[in-house]
Amino acid sequence: MLTLYHHPFSPASRFVRLMLAEHEVKVELVYERVWERRAEFLALNPAATVPVLTENDGPPIVGIFPIMEYVDETRGYSLGEHRLMPNHPEARAEMRRLVDWFAHKTHDEATQYFAHEKIFKLELPAALGGGSPDNQVLRVARANIKHHLHYIGWLAGSRNWLSGERMTFADLIAAAQLSVVDYLGEVPWDEDLNAKYWYARIKSRPSFRALLSDRVQGLPASPIYTDLDF
Amino acid sequence: MLTLYHHPFSPASRFVRLMLAEHEVKVELVYERVWERRAEFLALNPAATVPVLTENDGPPIVGIFPIMEYVDETRGYSLGEHRLMPNHPEARAEMRRLVDWFAHKTHDEATQYFAHEKIFKLELPAALGGGSPDNQVLRVARANIKHHLHYIGWLAGSRNWLSGERMTFADLIAAAQLSVVDYLGEVPWDEDLNAKYWYARIKSRPSFRALLSDRVQGLPASPIYTDLDF
Repeated sequence: MLTLYHHPFSPASRFVRLMLAEHEVKVELVYERVWERRAEFLALNPAATVPVLTENDGPPIVGIFPIMEYVDETRGYSLGEHRLMPNHPEARAEMRRLVDWFAHKTHDEATQYFAHEKIFKLELPAALGGGSPDNQVLRVARANIKHHLHYIGWLAGSRNWLSGERMTFADLIAAAQLSVVDYLGEVPWDEDLNAKYWYARIKSRPSFRALLSDRVQGLPASPIYTDLDF
Repeated sequence: MLTLYHHPFSPASRFVRLMLAEHEVKVELVYERVWERRAEFLALNPAATVPVLTENDGPPIVGIFPIMEYVDETRGYSLGEHRLMPNHPEARAEMRRLVDWFAHKTHDEATQYFAHEKIFKLELPAALGGGSPDNQVLRVARANIKHHLHYIGWLAGSRNWLSGERMTFADLIAAAQLSVVDYLGEVPWDEDLNAKYWYARIKSRPSFRALLSDRVQGLPASPIYTDLDF
């Protein structure tokens, strides 16, 4: 049995949920408020970050790169030609570069600002920085998201999927990042139609359904969030 | 032929040099001053970060996770039982967790402060933040490095190598981080003898020699930097 310690609006956690759903693997979800620093959770991951995956009595698998490789190593073969990891080392390298790009660069320059200011600050106690969003931070995020959207659009326009001819982990992490911003209605879709059509394809996948039913308490989803024909 | 775009005092670049040397692979080194934003380099990696590895006419392999997996996929088998990647998916996951820990947490909380304040600021033009080190930043780095050293000591004391019974990529990335700080004489070795003895083992390896001959212009190495019996 797999257990995922996650936050429903952590893009990295969403990435793992998507990859497990693509492999049609059941997983038990534990909603982890990392700022509470639960002792049992710190024992699993002293860095106090999500996602963390465990399988039966095995050791904790911490962070998206270790989890991605583990899921592919233990389940990838079952997907046959739909495997999320390309076959050739060079194609894998390009895919891993993109995963790192979306997980770190897109996240650090855009997604995390939106998520932190508009979602996490609702849950965080005031002593830990909870409160109203900082509009200056949001302005930076709104400028930056455009560049990241165009990069996705450029990739989607020059290849079939972001890292090549078939869907890979790179598509899932990019979609996971955008999905959090899309909940807030902050993705400027009309700025890049290639990106929009690529996202519509991913969003229609059965693996995406669970994400579309997540809700932030006290903050309704943007009207287009669940619309497959946005 | 492999080409590595690197900086001699970027811990991530050092990690790649160590892994290539462990595989006894020849590599051409290109000293990349990323802040100059060379057009040819940006074409390889729009994120403008090192390390970037290329092989013959293949696509750029960007960042330590893609490079580590690529080197293992294309050369790991040749190392036999000394392969730097463990065999079992669970052991790989633990190794990758540690690589991520040292590459991000140890780097962000300690190594990068030392490297930036004491080394990179010597090379950077004033307009990009070059100049004298900020002592307040160094104080934070000196407090933080102790925790990271103790974590290494704890791992080295409870296992043979950091991620288990044999040396892996995790040892190389941890050593790459410490080596930059050690050049500056800023590793408080006496605080943790387990960490010190572990580092002495790594430092004595032939793969480490090239790092020990690197010098920063205008900043001599700490006397213990090249001493194998420090």
